Amino acid sequence: MKYALLSVWDKTGIIELAQTLKAANFKILSSGGTAKTLREAGLDITEVSDYTGAPEMMDGRVKTLHPKIHGGLLGRRGIDDAVMEEHGISGIDLLVVNLYPFEEMSGKDLPLNELVEYIDIGGPAMIRAAAKNFKDVAVVIDPKDYDMVKEAVRGEGFTEKDRLYLAKKVFARTASYDAAIANYFYSIDSEFPEVYTVQFRNGRTLRYGENPHQKAAVYGETGIAGQTTLQGKEMSYNNYLDVDAAVSLLREFEETASVIVKHNNPCGVATGEKLLDAYLSARDVDPVSAYGGIVALNREVGADVAEELASTFIEVVIAPSYTDEALKIMTRKENMRVLVLPEEEPEVSVRTIDGGALLQKTPKDLTENWQVVTEREPTAEEMESMKLAMKVCKHTKSNAIIFAKGKSVLGIGAGQMNRVNSAQIAVMKSNFPLEGSAVASDAFLPFADTLEEAAKAGATALLQPGGSIRDQEVIDAANRLNVAMVFTGIRYFRH
Amino acid sequence: MKYALLSVWDKTGIIELAQTLKAANFKILSSGGTAKTLREAGLDITEVSDYTGAPEMMDGRVKTLHPKIHGGLLGRRGIDDAVMEEHGISGIDLLVVNLYPFEEMSGKDLPLNELVEYIDIGGPAMIRAAAKNFKDVAVVIDPKDYDMVKEAVRGEGFTEKDRLYLAKKVFARTASYDAAIANYFYSIDSEFPEVYTVQFRNGRTLRYGENPHQKAAVYGETGIAGQTTLQGKEMSYNNYLDVDAAVSLLREFEETASVIVKHNNPCGVATGEKLLDAYLSARDVDPVSAYGGIVALNREVGADVAEELASTFIEVVIAPSYTDEALKIMTRKENMRVLVLPEEEPEVSVRTIDGGALLQKTPKDLTENWQVVTEREPTAEEMESMKLAMKVCKHTKSNAIIFAKGKSVLGIGAGQMNRVNSAQIAVMKSNFPLEGSAVASDAFLPFADTLEEAAKAGATALLQPGGSIRDQEVIDAANRLNVAMVFTGIRYFRH
Repeated sequence: MKYALLSVWDKTGIIELAQTLKAANFKILSSGGTAKTLREAGLDITEVSDYTGAPEMMDGRVKTLHPKIHGGLLGRRGIDDAVMEEHGISGIDLLVVNLYPFEEMSGKDLPLNELVEYIDIGGPAMIRAAAKNFKDVAVVIDPKDYDMVKEAVRGEGFTEKDRLYLAKKVFARTASYDAAIANYFYSIDSEFPEVYTVQFRNGRTLRYGENPHQKAAVYGETGIAGQTTLQGKEMSYNNYLDVDAAVSLLREFEETASVIVKHNNPCGVATGEKLLDAYLSARDVDPVSAYGGIVALNREVGADVAEELASTFIEVVIAPSYTDEALKIMTRKENMRVLVLPEEEPEVSVRTIDGGALLQKTPKDLTENWQVVTEREPTAEEMESMKLAMKVCKHTKSNAIIFAKGKSVLGIGAGQMNRVNSAQIAVMKSNFPLEGSAVASDAFLPFADTLEEAAKAGATALLQPGGSIRDQEVIDAANRLNVAMVFTGIRYFRH
Repeated sequence: MKYALLSVWDKTGIIELAQTLKAANFKILSSGGTAKTLREAGLDITEVSDYTGAPEMMDGRVKTLHPKIHGGLLGRRGIDDAVMEEHGISGIDLLVVNLYPFEEMSGKDLPLNELVEYIDIGGPAMIRAAAKNFKDVAVVIDPKDYDMVKEAVRGEGFTEKDRLYLAKKVFARTASYDAAIANYFYSIDSEFPEVYTVQFRNGRTLRYGENPHQKAAVYGETGIAGQTTLQGKEMSYNNYLDVDAAVSLLREFEETASVIVKHNNPCGVATGEKLLDAYLSARDVDPVSAYGGIVALNREVGADVAEELASTFIEVVIAPSYTDEALKIMTRKENMRVLVLPEEEPEVSVRTIDGGALLQKTPKDLTENWQVVTEREPTAEEMESMKLAMKVCKHTKSNAIIFAKGKSVLGIGAGQMNRVNSAQIAVMKSNFPLEGSAVASDAFLPFADTLEEAAKAGATALLQPGGSIRDQEVIDAANRLNVAMVFTGIRYFRH
């Protein structure tokens, strides 16, 4: 006689599974709600308490924590047979358990004394015991694996490989379950828990990392990390990083917009009436860099944009959706990776450093307090240009100086160790006249030099956080050069 | 009568603790090796098996998994008193447990069937039960907490705050324990486990993140993340990131070297006979950017270097050690953060992206295969310059073009979206004549233009990975311009 113990919170598929087990001659042990569900479905089951001779007690807190159960899960067949027989312990061959929904309930704002009732004790103890003894016991914690179980019990039974696969899932689950509990407890008195445990799932080894000699993998079930491409080559490590950068910038825009990223920095950004306008304007900002870049778009891609994408070399395109015609056109560039823009954005960023990690959150509803500090007010067009430039600034590696005019960025000065260099680079790289443009700086101008460079290049408005001890010097220079200047109060470094 | 259950793998301090418990009139339950240790120390204890009436079985696999134990841990005082009395269950007031050393043993290359014996089942079940019931039970898993326990039992007992503190540690520990087991199991057939769980400890909230409106914390017990400053202000988010970048570059050097980082990019790097020479040369590369930078040094800092550090504004200095005199001098700049250079470097980097994360490893023993591809061989000085330039290239944001001569970097072109811009920036920013310098590029030159820019600026040697379809064009240009060129075969992007 084979034994199966079934004890699940999520009852999905449990009746069908039990029916299959019965048909394969399993004796079914069960308790609590699962026992009731199965009995009501007409299945003949044995209550755990009848089997152990010990009652279920303390509102279900103690049910399966018994030597007859754990001996049946932990007993090594061929080694512990005698002791099992002596104590009337039947080997449990199959354990089907899923846990109380702590994660879900912890989001519901329950008082702690109610929430602790959702900390499962018996379940994790059993599945860990069975997983340790995977040589002899199959343990199933995921209804998605029930089909595999049915197939095995109808056929030749589980292979050791099956049981090892199932055991792995157990420890990943208990790790993540207790991580959720620990993170909850530690977050009671601090926004960042003193101990932070995070689990990354759905890991896939990449061809290589940032460089061919580096090994790497990507993890994730949702968002950019979780999806597979609609077409094109496998995503590379750098593709993921660049798409992530492109999408965070794209999320700044509600209006129709296009972003092109190269080496983790924007090299073209524009808005437009139509998506095609936005894309073409973005591409024109720096066509040399755009070649081989990442293109992110926030409207459905139709045939017109698809034609342009397919006419050059683009590593990745990401957009909310694509018309069938667009998808067909893009197949002409079979290597071009095509992705779907995810809706939600991540809340916490983790970045490891030597010996540990940095965690960071960004508020979703940040308000900048724009204040005109010069005698001259910016014109409406200057305001629009500054707004665009500031959005791009936030997502450009520091120090960042961005020139924009109307709906398009004109010059991007990125990643410099001093600010005036970034301005010089933006000017040097620009393919457009900068007369009448507006400039944004990701951090305050420590001196008037950057403003002077910008004005010399033709800029007539400048946006910056303000806050330098030399602000007055910079304001005086702006007044002298007739540059309208706005302070925002918010710095946007990005490293 | 109060009950304590003691069952520990690590016996540190357990006898003293048990003596204190005895003196405070606790009845001690124990099993296995712990019982033996305590009995040999002359302590009167009760075997768990005598208390439960169920024998320890299966070589210790089943000892405490019993309703009398778990009822004693989970029973709610005031609610479950009657059922506890009915079944002869004594409330266990204090649980002292630490787990089988799975983490340690998993590093010892044991076969899986031996290693699974170090997966603790009874221990996690008990500590999780007690932690769930923290309202009534104190659970101690860390010998470092024994002093607190002694104080509590000698005095007024545990407060609820104490018990909550202890319970938090339990779930953090079981999460990390099962993470180690899961990571082990998943790594059996893949270098990157399909599910990866990581725990960051010793979390400390920072004043703010990359920008003042972002909340952030740092985690870590070792390395850069784990240490506290010898002097100076609290480390900021950007300080940690920049120190991490500075130290990874510094680790390229066995000879005496100095690195200065600003905005996550090197802005000065030099080697020297003496540390003072190396520091001064590094500072001279770009003194404007070096102001407010991060200085990393790989030799003990003496009075001479300390004087120079204290003569300007440096955010952070990190070095293996400091003479007492140097430390005293640096107190003149009381805000300057002073750190100790850690010895080991991290093995895996984690970086979250939308919906998931990227993991990456870098081989420690990478060999570049240097190959001269031009008619002219580089001179010994050119070779030295190229070597230095390449080291800096690896740690500069892409695209990176570095000019160096002898022991010092002369120009750094960082973070550009096309390569020739990086070369132009390096030239534009250099404060030195570039005649006779050598250039390194982090990735291959797609065209001859970057080489031509470099040669025009005075460079006579160039190092790059090679591998472009236009390599021959670049080689021809190098021969024409009498530039000695070396291919390394290894790309060094950094984003």
